[in-house]
Amino acid sequence: MTDTGSKSFEVRVPASTANLGAGFDCLGLALELFLKVRATVLSKPGARTLARTSGIGGSSRLPSAPEENLILQAMRHTAAREGFELPPLRLAVQNQIPMAGGLGSSAAASVAGAALAFAIGDKQLRREAILQHASEMEGHADNVAASIFGGLVVTLTLPDRTVVAVCKRWPKMIRAIAVTPNLELATKKSRGVLPESVSMADAVHNLQRSALFVAAVEERRYDLVWDAMRDRLHQPHRQRLIPGMAEILAMPRRPGLLGLALSGAGPSVIALATDRYEEIGKAIAAHFERRNVGATIRKLEAAQEGLALTERNSRR
Amino acid sequence: MTDTGSKSFEVRVPASTANLGAGFDCLGLALELFLKVRATVLSKPGARTLARTSGIGGSSRLPSAPEENLILQAMRHTAAREGFELPPLRLAVQNQIPMAGGLGSSAAASVAGAALAFAIGDKQLRREAILQHASEMEGHADNVAASIFGGLVVTLTLPDRTVVAVCKRWPKMIRAIAVTPNLELATKKSRGVLPESVSMADAVHNLQRSALFVAAVEERRYDLVWDAMRDRLHQPHRQRLIPGMAEILAMPRRPGLLGLALSGAGPSVIALATDRYEEIGKAIAAHFERRNVGATIRKLEAAQEGLALTERNSRR
Repeated sequence: MTDTGSKSFEVRVPASTANLGAGFDCLGLALELFLKVRATVLSKPGARTLARTSGIGGSSRLPSAPEENLILQAMRHTAAREGFELPPLRLAVQNQIPMAGGLGSSAAASVAGAALAFAIGDKQLRREAILQHASEMEGHADNVAASIFGGLVVTLTLPDRTVVAVCKRWPKMIRAIAVTPNLELATKKSRGVLPESVSMADAVHNLQRSALFVAAVEERRYDLVWDAMRDRLHQPHRQRLIPGMAEILAMPRRPGLLGLALSGAGPSVIALATDRYEEIGKAIAAHFERRNVGATIRKLEAAQEGLALTERNSRR
Repeated sequence: MTDTGSKSFEVRVPASTANLGAGFDCLGLALELFLKVRATVLSKPGARTLARTSGIGGSSRLPSAPEENLILQAMRHTAAREGFELPPLRLAVQNQIPMAGGLGSSAAASVAGAALAFAIGDKQLRREAILQHASEMEGHADNVAASIFGGLVVTLTLPDRTVVAVCKRWPKMIRAIAVTPNLELATKKSRGVLPESVSMADAVHNLQRSALFVAAVEERRYDLVWDAMRDRLHQPHRQRLIPGMAEILAMPRRPGLLGLALSGAGPSVIALATDRYEEIGKAIAAHFERRNVGATIRKLEAAQEGLALTERNSRR
């Protein structure tokens, strides 16, 4: 009797911050905080898919089940769309991304699942197709595109549901400070507070700034990032759901700080900075603490690489 | 008795197209069609400022007076703001930019005036200050910034009225086809038809596309320019004022054509293209002609340089 080879695939997917202020449902930035998933194909007859989680870093209060489910859901969604069946699997999940924190944990799970489905289905790892499937799962593409491509992404969904994305390298000297309050905030609730109509002036305000953000980062006009991140479409409504957020988003300019925004739908805050990271993180967290809400401060590099996949063929 | 030196300055300012579809009140592109103004300082005591126009190219129906007035107004506005007095002058104007056509003729005049005022006032030619003064004259900054800096500009006016602009080089392989119908359309009227509020979906649509335009041009994703130029905020309202415009803006994709938009507030159409310029220009003009409106087609390079000033000291 010969040994059966056991095939396994590992994906590493970065976290992300979406919107960056004015770039609502459009801009995303990948962050060096990772979700890693190893999927091992179970060749034993009658085996059932199993999942095991280890080390959800940095946040003890998080449930482990939903995220694994999201990974599996994305695998099944992708397999169904691509027309193949998944074998029984063993999944091992290692996650550093806080869940429901506004740092793209669910997008990372969807991307991981879609990528693993392609790997297992013996299909080429087509990033554009992963973008499509994972964005369908998520309902929007900004976090998904950042997790797949890395760097800064500009993305949107066309009327025919095709997702397009352009990714750009991010200047190394700009780092992100993510401050995550110990609060649960469902994205759905955060979307529910947005108005159906807005003033033309506010619409123009945001379209000017989303374009300015892309151009200012590209042309190293970092002095303009502050204004480019000012939002009038979603933050004024969402900040009411998070104690301390209005004060944080009204903080004045200070040395080292380029700009401030709600990260995705919140509750995290994302600050872009070139210096004095610790001071800035503490100044933001202080506003949460004043409302008796604890907060975790993370200084993060932008992830220049997105989704990475490795394949291992081990002998048992 | 010695001769008095006669000082003269010449500015050359490119035309421009604003908005480029979704980038309403934000994007501008400089075009190789020029306004040239020579200002000669009259040293005779009691001399009065005089203006003379020659060769308003390509458009015989244009009045010559208002544009010279705009140049003079901008000179006086700038001199007043900068705190100096203008001497009596002789102005010679050579203009290739059709007036009230949506190709930035009045912005070019304001820029020319502001630049000449700085030159004559013996001040350094500060582009940022010219941007400020000329945008004040114009009421918005997109054409002005393109005329000053050249290439593609992203611009906006901050709440404190400071105008900011980032300029980017434009890919040489993309040319502009400007199709100008023989119609008068006041910018004021074209602004008057815009609604005061818009749907959140339309606001997001445009902010996504204005950012995408900047990123797509930068990353040479020319396949995305078509979608990046699709506007929902101003063109649907303005197109009603111009016979044939609705049909033009609904034209399908065709070889060589990257995208289509109303140029500024109209009535010109601007098409971006990499090939088949003549065919594209004629296809656009045909929609005007079907409504019994003649049109002038211009194939234009983007102007990579903006405002240029030369000084001449001649002996009499």
